[in-house]
Amino acid sequence: MKIACFLYPDFTTIDLVGPLSPWSHIPGVELEFVAANKGPMATDSRLSVLATHSLDSFTPNPDVIFVPGAGRPTFDAMQNDAFLDAIARAGAQAKWITSVCTGSLILGAAGLLEGYRAACHWYARPYLEKFGAIPDDRRVVIDRNRASGGGVTAGIDFGLRMAAEWVGEDTARLIELIMEYAPEPPFNTGRPELVDAQTLSIAKQMAAQIMPEELATIAAKRRGLLHLGA
Amino acid sequence: MKIACFLYPDFTTIDLVGPLSPWSHIPGVELEFVAANKGPMATDSRLSVLATHSLDSFTPNPDVIFVPGAGRPTFDAMQNDAFLDAIARAGAQAKWITSVCTGSLILGAAGLLEGYRAACHWYARPYLEKFGAIPDDRRVVIDRNRASGGGVTAGIDFGLRMAAEWVGEDTARLIELIMEYAPEPPFNTGRPELVDAQTLSIAKQMAAQIMPEELATIAAKRRGLLHLGA
Repeated sequence: MKIACFLYPDFTTIDLVGPLSPWSHIPGVELEFVAANKGPMATDSRLSVLATHSLDSFTPNPDVIFVPGAGRPTFDAMQNDAFLDAIARAGAQAKWITSVCTGSLILGAAGLLEGYRAACHWYARPYLEKFGAIPDDRRVVIDRNRASGGGVTAGIDFGLRMAAEWVGEDTARLIELIMEYAPEPPFNTGRPELVDAQTLSIAKQMAAQIMPEELATIAAKRRGLLHLGA
Repeated sequence: MKIACFLYPDFTTIDLVGPLSPWSHIPGVELEFVAANKGPMATDSRLSVLATHSLDSFTPNPDVIFVPGAGRPTFDAMQNDAFLDAIARAGAQAKWITSVCTGSLILGAAGLLEGYRAACHWYARPYLEKFGAIPDDRRVVIDRNRASGGGVTAGIDFGLRMAAEWVGEDTARLIELIMEYAPEPPFNTGRPELVDAQTLSIAKQMAAQIMPEELATIAAKRRGLLHLGA
């Protein structure tokens, strides 16, 4: 099984590494890390990673395409025609079209989510509608061959659910044990409904700086282009 | 605050990226990724990352040292004198000495855990005793200035707990929300006590191939060297 992961500058490292953790335990999985250029790529955690293939050189017809999310860098990815075209091209043939966090907005910008339910980071989730997708607040959303995880750490849950789809639940249960995935969130504040009003207010102010209303404009423009092209 | 992360070939990517996820949200944190050589380093998930500093060139006296775990590659790290010496040297002055998963065995091999409680992956945990450390089955263990996370995904819990120690619980609560850390393990099999006998048996057989009794011999030899040197 060939999985093509589409990377862009300053994407959120754990959006990618969360699902890689279970996937790398599946025998026969072949991973390609695809970006504008082969070589080092900065990520949000200050760890740089290596893209193994450029947009021109990845193996055609991957079985799975995967796009991680980001904060503001999502905007640049959503306006990068070469990047979106490569995703749309690979997605046209893929058995699974997948994302974590705001990666679903990028799939939307590539025209791959019209009429599909999708997950996204809690703050950015409403913007999915701009691409004709149906925002879904579950941590992992599977709608036909589209599968998406919610914000950031949801990538681990998403990755394990995909492992079960691909190699069966017995193997996925084993991988969950090997990964010692019995989480104990220290503060139980991982969803807006769980947190006090002040913390939520600060988080929303921070998010509004990262994901301002400008996103709606970018999305509308991109969707217009998609429909012109269709 | 300067954090030096000590990397070695084929370490477990998410052991590092789990804590980086909260840490990269803390203003003023400076991260160095230290390895035998600066440049690309393979990890267990097939994603390569970039070491920013060599063992000879990292900034002296980091405030925090951090070591991720691995499967079998832990053995090589535990027998690499130059690597262990650099960790011991940095650890001698550090305010915090930290690890995730089998990273605690490497801290032990560097002579930094004698008389301290520590966490580790569930399978490898008993080997901590070979270094005079006290195995502790909690997901995050803090004993004076030693802090460790259990297996693999415990690095997220560990990273958030450290964030609270360093910048206070209010900020850590906010970071947990931004990271959307409200996990839903799909199969509830993340600890040996939670899983059926057959899955546990397979996991133990796999682990025994990765972490055979040979580990005890390596540990005894290394501890002998430490005590000779002392």
